[in-house]
Amino acid sequence: MSTVRNAVRERAGEDEEAIAEIMRRGGPLLRARMVSTEEHLELVTAQAGAPLAAHATATVLAGGKRLRPLLVVLAATVVGGGDAGGDAGGDERGSDQPLVRAAVAVELVHSATLVHDDVIDGAQLRRGHPSVVARAGRRAAIATGDLLFSRAFAELARNGDVAQLRALSDASSALAEGELLQREDAYAAQVALERYLRRCELKTAALFEAACRLGALVAAGATAESDEASAEVSGLAGSLMAAPESAGTLAPGAALADALGAFARRIGLAFQLLDDVLDVCGPVERTGKPRGTDLLDGTVTLPLILARAHDPRLTEIDLAALDGPEQAAELCDRIAATGALEEARSRALALVAGAKAMLPAILPDGRAALLDLVADAVVERYR
Amino acid sequence: MSTVRNAVRERAGEDEEAIAEIMRRGGPLLRARMVSTEEHLELVTAQAGAPLAAHATATVLAGGKRLRPLLVVLAATVVGGGDAGGDAGGDERGSDQPLVRAAVAVELVHSATLVHDDVIDGAQLRRGHPSVVARAGRRAAIATGDLLFSRAFAELARNGDVAQLRALSDASSALAEGELLQREDAYAAQVALERYLRRCELKTAALFEAACRLGALVAAGATAESDEASAEVSGLAGSLMAAPESAGTLAPGAALADALGAFARRIGLAFQLLDDVLDVCGPVERTGKPRGTDLLDGTVTLPLILARAHDPRLTEIDLAALDGPEQAAELCDRIAATGALEEARSRALALVAGAKAMLPAILPDGRAALLDLVADAVVERYR
Repeated sequence: MSTVRNAVRERAGEDEEAIAEIMRRGGPLLRARMVSTEEHLELVTAQAGAPLAAHATATVLAGGKRLRPLLVVLAATVVGGGDAGGDAGGDERGSDQPLVRAAVAVELVHSATLVHDDVIDGAQLRRGHPSVVARAGRRAAIATGDLLFSRAFAELARNGDVAQLRALSDASSALAEGELLQREDAYAAQVALERYLRRCELKTAALFEAACRLGALVAAGATAESDEASAEVSGLAGSLMAAPESAGTLAPGAALADALGAFARRIGLAFQLLDDVLDVCGPVERTGKPRGTDLLDGTVTLPLILARAHDPRLTEIDLAALDGPEQAAELCDRIAATGALEEARSRALALVAGAKAMLPAILPDGRAALLDLVADAVVERYR
Repeated sequence: MSTVRNAVRERAGEDEEAIAEIMRRGGPLLRARMVSTEEHLELVTAQAGAPLAAHATATVLAGGKRLRPLLVVLAATVVGGGDAGGDAGGDERGSDQPLVRAAVAVELVHSATLVHDDVIDGAQLRRGHPSVVARAGRRAAIATGDLLFSRAFAELARNGDVAQLRALSDASSALAEGELLQREDAYAAQVALERYLRRCELKTAALFEAACRLGALVAAGATAESDEASAEVSGLAGSLMAAPESAGTLAPGAALADALGAFARRIGLAFQLLDDVLDVCGPVERTGKPRGTDLLDGTVTLPLILARAHDPRLTEIDLAALDGPEQAAELCDRIAATGALEEARSRALALVAGAKAMLPAILPDGRAALLDLVADAVVERYR
């Protein structure tokens, strides 16, 4: 147990000051829920039998920021009014099981895509450890990813809420569709901005959305069981439904889930935009990979799309003809010279600002503060 | 529509006389349900957007025996007392939606594993068409498999029954675990019989079980909505619960699902055993692949396990050292010479006989006739 707690603490402290701040501000209940999530991830992967337990360690348990489970837990905390300052006793954590399952399910889907991504890219390392494909080969890695997908749905099915399952399966389909879209557009001389944004929504924003949606659904379900808390949620949903863009016929839980899902979708999109900026300008000691890695893979991202609009000669460059990291770095410099990076960054910041501006209508009385911090954390990483 | 109908008819008529017989005996309702399943498979893959629609055609729509969807539909038909001789009007088929979704979900999971299997094996052809990996590369094929998995759960989630989702996610996890187990045992000089059987349960029997389980759950749910039919199901479940091996506390639908699941599990196990026999003795014009293909891949199956017990010198043969189809065929001959094939076949036939013997207790009044035919069909293919 204490190893798990240490792992959570170390990971948060490593390079994610902003996330560590959320953990501090979230209080003992948030921390207890994240520790339970970590423990349950360990349990689920161990239950799956020896081969997976070994392979999963390389990915699921080897770390990661746990940003998506954190979104699940935070969404539930702000909706359900989880006592941020309260004591997390054993009983309280016991009643957190549905929430922990949802958080675990989201991380399992994310891990599954990472394992499969590494098969596609033939990546040797993942989170500083040998990737599953490097350790055990393609067959085992594809099966491990499939297993993680299946376990995600099996875990979530235990919550007994079809809306939750729909949220996860929609996001999971989106991830795969995004991958196919990326594949289709690889090395393309022209990629429309709308198409790029659609790909980011599929590949990144959809799972962020599902995370917040799941947290809201779990919390709404749990609080609906207690009269007092139910009245509170109705109050929130009531103020939400008074907003012009909300459909009056939505159930309170569903309305909250939609609203927080929309918030997370924008955050996720910004996250991907900034990730793509970092590929062009991020130093290797920060990103762990040379600049222009995406370009070498033929992935046309926002900086290149914007740069091509400013400097049409860039359209003549065939990504497939790029020969090695030096030429990629050179292209990165030319992209940066057009001002495309600032433009992309501004777009991302505008998305985050828009997401934060939505919150007061969703969660009055300053209860959205923790989600504000998550929005800031997404930006913070790319300062 | 008529293309779909023709496809169903042609496929059934191609080499699956036993399945064609079931379709004939099942009457218009069964045929209508299988046609709806085919149409819905087409719809689901088309909805997923252009890239998948193209890739899915190569696998999902290119054929296959549709044995698993057939099990779903048959289980529902025998449980719900579907009118085998009745007319399948538009209205009746409309109410079949939950059943069709379950049948589609099972086939999508099966297709997903086939797409991923082809990535692992680098297979060029699947069901006579270029495989997805051959058409579009590894990246697209892995994503296509992931998408098919996700769509399976999304479809089934629409039925709103967590027990159904649990059945599918358990089977889907089992498939991946079986693949990992097979990978672990590859080229092993000794594989315990129990371990081989466990692998077959995971890789094949679990999805057969899920198919019948799903059909029973859908039918029990549907009939529970009508008083008359509900009484009928209770009657069936009552006779089942009188059997000593049934837990008295099970709900009727769950008890039927368990019993039909156990039936299908045995059939699935027999199916895999016979498939493994066929790898050793099946002529290429029947199996589409040279004898001993599994052996060349390092897969230790029942014939080899039994043969090694009879002829210890076979234990000394290192599968990894097998050089080409000729040496594989030679090993097949040595395996056949020990009598291992007859022994494996007997085991499979005993499993099928045992499965058939279970049916009268589950479904009295001769309603199990169609399932008897499925059991026979599994054996028939390997005569």
